[in-house]
Amino acid sequence: MTQPTQTRSWVASANGHADFPLQNLPLGVFSINGSAPRSGVAIGDMILDLHAALDEFDGDARRAVEATAGGQLNAFFELGRGPRVALRQRLLELLAEGSKLQTREAQVLHRAADCQMHLPAKINDYTDFYVGIEHAQNVGKLFRPDNPLLPNYKYVPIGYHGRASTIRPSGTEVRRPKGQTLPAGQSAPTFGPCARLDYELELGIWIGQGNAMGDAIAIGDAAEHIAGFCLLNDWSARDIQAWEYQPLGPFLSKSFITSVSPWVVTAEALEPFRKAQPPRPEGDPQPLPYLLDKRDQNAGAFDIELEVLLTTASMREQNLPAHRLTLSNTEHMYWTVAQMVAHHSVNGCQLQAGDLFGSGTLSGPQPGQFGSLLEITEGGKKPIELASGEVRKFLEDGDEIILRARCSREGFASIGFGECRGTVVAAR
Amino acid sequence: MTQPTQTRSWVASANGHADFPLQNLPLGVFSINGSAPRSGVAIGDMILDLHAALDEFDGDARRAVEATAGGQLNAFFELGRGPRVALRQRLLELLAEGSKLQTREAQVLHRAADCQMHLPAKINDYTDFYVGIEHAQNVGKLFRPDNPLLPNYKYVPIGYHGRASTIRPSGTEVRRPKGQTLPAGQSAPTFGPCARLDYELELGIWIGQGNAMGDAIAIGDAAEHIAGFCLLNDWSARDIQAWEYQPLGPFLSKSFITSVSPWVVTAEALEPFRKAQPPRPEGDPQPLPYLLDKRDQNAGAFDIELEVLLTTASMREQNLPAHRLTLSNTEHMYWTVAQMVAHHSVNGCQLQAGDLFGSGTLSGPQPGQFGSLLEITEGGKKPIELASGEVRKFLEDGDEIILRARCSREGFASIGFGECRGTVVAAR
Repeated sequence: MTQPTQTRSWVASANGHADFPLQNLPLGVFSINGSAPRSGVAIGDMILDLHAALDEFDGDARRAVEATAGGQLNAFFELGRGPRVALRQRLLELLAEGSKLQTREAQVLHRAADCQMHLPAKINDYTDFYVGIEHAQNVGKLFRPDNPLLPNYKYVPIGYHGRASTIRPSGTEVRRPKGQTLPAGQSAPTFGPCARLDYELELGIWIGQGNAMGDAIAIGDAAEHIAGFCLLNDWSARDIQAWEYQPLGPFLSKSFITSVSPWVVTAEALEPFRKAQPPRPEGDPQPLPYLLDKRDQNAGAFDIELEVLLTTASMREQNLPAHRLTLSNTEHMYWTVAQMVAHHSVNGCQLQAGDLFGSGTLSGPQPGQFGSLLEITEGGKKPIELASGEVRKFLEDGDEIILRARCSREGFASIGFGECRGTVVAAR
Repeated sequence: MTQPTQTRSWVASANGHADFPLQNLPLGVFSINGSAPRSGVAIGDMILDLHAALDEFDGDARRAVEATAGGQLNAFFELGRGPRVALRQRLLELLAEGSKLQTREAQVLHRAADCQMHLPAKINDYTDFYVGIEHAQNVGKLFRPDNPLLPNYKYVPIGYHGRASTIRPSGTEVRRPKGQTLPAGQSAPTFGPCARLDYELELGIWIGQGNAMGDAIAIGDAAEHIAGFCLLNDWSARDIQAWEYQPLGPFLSKSFITSVSPWVVTAEALEPFRKAQPPRPEGDPQPLPYLLDKRDQNAGAFDIELEVLLTTASMREQNLPAHRLTLSNTEHMYWTVAQMVAHHSVNGCQLQAGDLFGSGTLSGPQPGQFGSLLEITEGGKKPIELASGEVRKFLEDGDEIILRARCSREGFASIGFGECRGTVVAAR
């Protein structure tokens, strides 16, 4: 399905909108003034209330809208690609210039600024991958300078189970966690607020149709099981992590909160920004057959620019511009999202509509492209200086982290993901 | 609350029943002939249909029964201790000899053998701990003979997030998973069916009332957040695990299935079988203050005998008795369940009613007490011999593993947990 690149919307703010022009049409769940959460589509600075416009849809598109009822998109995700595409096509008609829907504007549109966004789905299981190879190397170097990548990295799309109950939409405050940490040079831990609080820049992947337990999803079918994408901040307590993570992996260092951008950017909206998986460097092994699919190799990667901004309380008071911490791209993913899906289910593990994957931190190889303070400051050894005169090794109370994403390509309308924000508040 | 030790039930099979005498009264979810799942109480060889007997309850006990509607106990778990105790007290009256409920026997009781058991709750998040110190030492010895326990073990109740979507009730077949494994002496993995399939004997813990994100559950309050207990088999693919688990922990080696016994044995039923946490060996550190509570130290541990049996297809054909693999006890837990709850939430992580914890493998220190084949056969080096003449390093297709638990104490009726069974079937 090609993008109607030239088509303009009767929603004036959509035309040229950085995130939500007519060509994007991400889905989400919103409420107004404490109303029950309901499904909507972002268009410019507005939100289309899908149920208020229900009688404009029929066939598969109507099935799709009906499946978004109840303030959760899980049933819609489960419907898969066909109804999702039908909904998109009808939305493109309804929101294009000349559509009669404009006469019902007051009934079906809300100002996004008046709305509260919610998680788009009930998340049954959350899995965090580690496919950002530059991040894996940068972090590995801090611990093992000569041998940063473990032997399994180029064979296994490494991932681990994350905590689903503390995933929250953009804007939720980030309470500094307390926990055990081992002071340098000591053999016994102390307990207190995390002193090395960090962000991690990740792509989030919403799972669509699930699989029955015992049935693997073949790599060639995996794209059909992906409903959409978001931004994800895998907030990390580095000092807690360092002490707790052996031998079973990160636990309390991650589970205090994970933030996501609330809009589900569909695979269809991202279609123009797909690209071939970059060839593996010479000497790297080819993926095992269950992870190898020609179509996925040719078009399973994405060109999505990713950005992280920081403001401190002092910077906001002084109206100083945000400090850019990271400018990276999804091209640093060593494994595609289809490979993640195929790997995750190859043992028969059941995926369900509304499951969320994180990509792992998507750093680039160069300074300025690192997706966490752990990498930027080399574990706190090289603090960064801010325009306010403040310095940061890790995040302080009052700091706000903003993730953004943007897709641009000659001849196509640019789209974005909306923001994923979180402000650190003091430990209780 | 003391057990009415001498009281007999009008349900004849309950009196002297190995698992479900009147003094146990575990809750579960069952169906008959494909009916909608509903809540019940195990009593002898029968199941009391709670909703069929609804008009026998009032006050808090009735609130409790009403909260078990819909084939999931989550809302009941969320009610906490008060209504759970009220329900138990009323059930003790209703099922005791002399109760008029006996006149309605045909209406309210079903033969358990005619029923199918389901998961008792929707599991939002599943966390697997590692508090069996003998298991941690036995496994650690295989990798690090001189230094089996990592430095954090005696400070941190180690745990990791598990996969919730593939937790299944006893009796669900265990499909042998496929995955990547590294053949001995090779540097590149191969793909195929797991060749080192194992069981792990664990205690399961059902979480009751949850906490708000950001609010830790104090160790002194933790017991109030535990709804009940079950048996849990953390099926493990050792060859997949060895290759995948660095640096983020076990993933596909565990997520193909986790089996639980379907009956929720309440804290009240286990009250007589509580005991003091054994004193820590000399030289071990004391728990940090957030993990230390006098009442928990004095009565937070349990004396529950745990047993694992194996039958092979050939043994069943020949009617040979099951082979006992493990006879262990919950006394080998280095951390109490209250300590697990306090630790899990100390960073503000939200627990929710229906979350499930696994204890980690509960091995004892002696041969015969090891809770996995990895320990029993020393990683496959010392195969076990069965009465059928077969040998086992790890599990073969057709093998069935049966977990059982039993609580006995002089002067009290013995109770059990019911079984947690699973039979291995060939990889697809």
